[in-house]
Amino acid sequence: MSEQRVIRPTPISGFPEWLPEIRSVEQRWLDHIRAGFERYGFASVETPSVENLDVLMAKGETSKEVYTLHRVQEEEGGDSEARLGLHFDLTVPFARYVAQHFNELAFPFKRYQIQRVWRGERPQEGRYREFTQCDIDVINVDGVPLHFDAEMPRVVHEVLAGLDLPAWTLSINNRKVLQGFYEGLGIADPLAVIRAVDKLHKIGDDGVRAILTDEGLSGAQIDSCLELARVKGADRSVVDAVAKLGAESDLLTEGLEELGFVLDSLADLPEGSVVADMSIARGLDYYTGTVYEAAFDDDPGYGSIVAGGRYENLAGQFIRRNLPGVGISIGLTRIFAKLVAEGRLPAGRTCPTDVLVAVPSAERREEALRTGALLRSRGFNTEVFHQASKVGKQLQYASKKGIPFVWFPPFADGRPHEVKDMATGEQAEADPALWERPAR
Amino acid sequence: MSEQRVIRPTPISGFPEWLPEIRSVEQRWLDHIRAGFERYGFASVETPSVENLDVLMAKGETSKEVYTLHRVQEEEGGDSEARLGLHFDLTVPFARYVAQHFNELAFPFKRYQIQRVWRGERPQEGRYREFTQCDIDVINVDGVPLHFDAEMPRVVHEVLAGLDLPAWTLSINNRKVLQGFYEGLGIADPLAVIRAVDKLHKIGDDGVRAILTDEGLSGAQIDSCLELARVKGADRSVVDAVAKLGAESDLLTEGLEELGFVLDSLADLPEGSVVADMSIARGLDYYTGTVYEAAFDDDPGYGSIVAGGRYENLAGQFIRRNLPGVGISIGLTRIFAKLVAEGRLPAGRTCPTDVLVAVPSAERREEALRTGALLRSRGFNTEVFHQASKVGKQLQYASKKGIPFVWFPPFADGRPHEVKDMATGEQAEADPALWERPAR
Repeated sequence: MSEQRVIRPTPISGFPEWLPEIRSVEQRWLDHIRAGFERYGFASVETPSVENLDVLMAKGETSKEVYTLHRVQEEEGGDSEARLGLHFDLTVPFARYVAQHFNELAFPFKRYQIQRVWRGERPQEGRYREFTQCDIDVINVDGVPLHFDAEMPRVVHEVLAGLDLPAWTLSINNRKVLQGFYEGLGIADPLAVIRAVDKLHKIGDDGVRAILTDEGLSGAQIDSCLELARVKGADRSVVDAVAKLGAESDLLTEGLEELGFVLDSLADLPEGSVVADMSIARGLDYYTGTVYEAAFDDDPGYGSIVAGGRYENLAGQFIRRNLPGVGISIGLTRIFAKLVAEGRLPAGRTCPTDVLVAVPSAERREEALRTGALLRSRGFNTEVFHQASKVGKQLQYASKKGIPFVWFPPFADGRPHEVKDMATGEQAEADPALWERPAR
Repeated sequence: MSEQRVIRPTPISGFPEWLPEIRSVEQRWLDHIRAGFERYGFASVETPSVENLDVLMAKGETSKEVYTLHRVQEEEGGDSEARLGLHFDLTVPFARYVAQHFNELAFPFKRYQIQRVWRGERPQEGRYREFTQCDIDVINVDGVPLHFDAEMPRVVHEVLAGLDLPAWTLSINNRKVLQGFYEGLGIADPLAVIRAVDKLHKIGDDGVRAILTDEGLSGAQIDSCLELARVKGADRSVVDAVAKLGAESDLLTEGLEELGFVLDSLADLPEGSVVADMSIARGLDYYTGTVYEAAFDDDPGYGSIVAGGRYENLAGQFIRRNLPGVGISIGLTRIFAKLVAEGRLPAGRTCPTDVLVAVPSAERREEALRTGALLRSRGFNTEVFHQASKVGKQLQYASKKGIPFVWFPPFADGRPHEVKDMATGEQAEADPALWERPAR
């Protein structure tokens, strides 16, 4: 065979790929998440993998990470594709989608979107260049009821509860609380403080203090900011704790009311599901109210596995309408790949086949094909062995692929069908029109 | 709202995007196809969207169409991404996958792969730059039994039969028949004839005659080639018709045996499902035996909606093993987009919600949330209206979104629940723990 040159394939860093037994689990996760989103009435949307670059760059922040497309041989006189980039999240494409199809959608518009996204980041633990996100968002004209801010964590909690993950916590905050609090302290540039506090978990109190000193804040102001960041709790008591810190502003009052509403609405979730944490800021500039962020309890440094928040003006960039939204995103690949790498994911099946129909001889092949067709029509995933050969070889194939049942059509006219349970080794007569899979 | 500049979004030519009521149909199609593939025991595989360029270029043919990735701001001193390109089909990535994971797979390895692919083609009717393909392939070590050549059309026939498509026909041929026949005529370069005959439907007899004359064929040879191309039929009679044309070679005999086997195996399919057509050549160089190609009966010029064949040496480029394969691909987007454009696709639901739970007053919101949770736990996709408001407004929302049932929790303690069937207008008492959706 082949004297030709071999192009030895190598894994591409940052682009995960799974063996079938892992992929089957990922597919089950995706189906589960999809069903969970639909259970709450979110409609499926997919957008192209690419957007025009000016759409992707509207917020400017992640420009370095955007992959642009080029053709191997660009056509002469034109560089039309140079304006296309792969999307780096699903929120910007969704905002663009709503603006573009505004007249054809019913509002409040609730959609889920499960797609791959791409970021040209330097690969490192938990960071991928191609990964799947599972997003739900609501966009509405002129205002999104707070109901949805409370719904987002509930949906994610319910969905992820079915996936048997290691313990994780969803932290909630409200940007109005932070901004209103800083304003109440008389700080001129609250956004600068938000950006500094967002780094608290990485650089610690001293790091934040240094930045805020440079920003011109007084020692007392900095102390108050850090005091706020330490407020944390599972219920409405957090609202009182913040109020007691003494800062006052209309925005703070509004933010605390919103935060209180969301916490009250989630009070029935299992303990530890949700915590209000005043140190959570979310770096992105477009968040304006509620923000969400979740991490694994035993590895918080791994990065957020769920994130989102309320944004007032993302779709409004693309149309002269006020189209605020709120959404949350499950970082599927980040969660999944970690469990795979740590061996914490029970492997799934290598193939979906329930029954392998054996072909004892070429003469009985037609009988085997008919039997396979009958079993399929009854809902069993069924392979017919691909050639007449020794029974031992066919059993070995079933065993290697983890196929749970091997079916033997009659080896002669008038003889019965038999089926072998590969787990128990038992073999018994069976009728392909009536057989049911034994319960285990 | 917003004095800022509006970036008006425009559709990107060649990158389809659907409204929710179309997307829900596409999702149903994808689920149906997936289930059909699994019914035959094909395992799910996904590969990254990108491959190293040398993998994509191994066959060299489509280089102009490959999109390469670049970062907006390439890092200094490095251009590492320049070696990555988006895959243009799923066969090459699969061949690479099998070679790369060779030691971890069980053979014959049957996989399905449903993913987007990208081609930097000039957009035209039926051609997209991003589109979804649904592929099944089998790769085996040292030889793929003919059983699989027969299985491919059967699976596709069964799967597409469930999608209520306009009539279409799958044409089958075998490259060994063509090549063996031309060899039997004493033609030195049979591949050149295959490439010419592949253009027959576009350029006609005269066009092919002109090319073959340039190739140095005699008038009698050309007559025989065109005679072969006219042979067509639904069953084994085709084999006899070819044999009668007088050319003889071992390869022709082998090809006719294979073709006969495949046709015999498919004899039970509905009439017109499959036709052997000696004018089908498939342009790609890597096909070596059975080839498949399907088109809509009423619009054959639209291009192939299903295509595939047997390839002996695709995975062998990436590893020093003999890894032949056979596969078939459903051009999902090409089929789907045509039906959408022609208005032949009944629109689906705009949202998956079965029941909207009304919130008559803020005081009853908790009751509404509890009712929603109960209905969800019983498997109904349920939204709770996002704020207390007039019943008329809530009914209007349900009507606009096509939600079939509106649920009214008790407006006071001790009163019953009621549910309104939006299709009939009937409203009746109901228990959320027992209610079943009326059969229609």
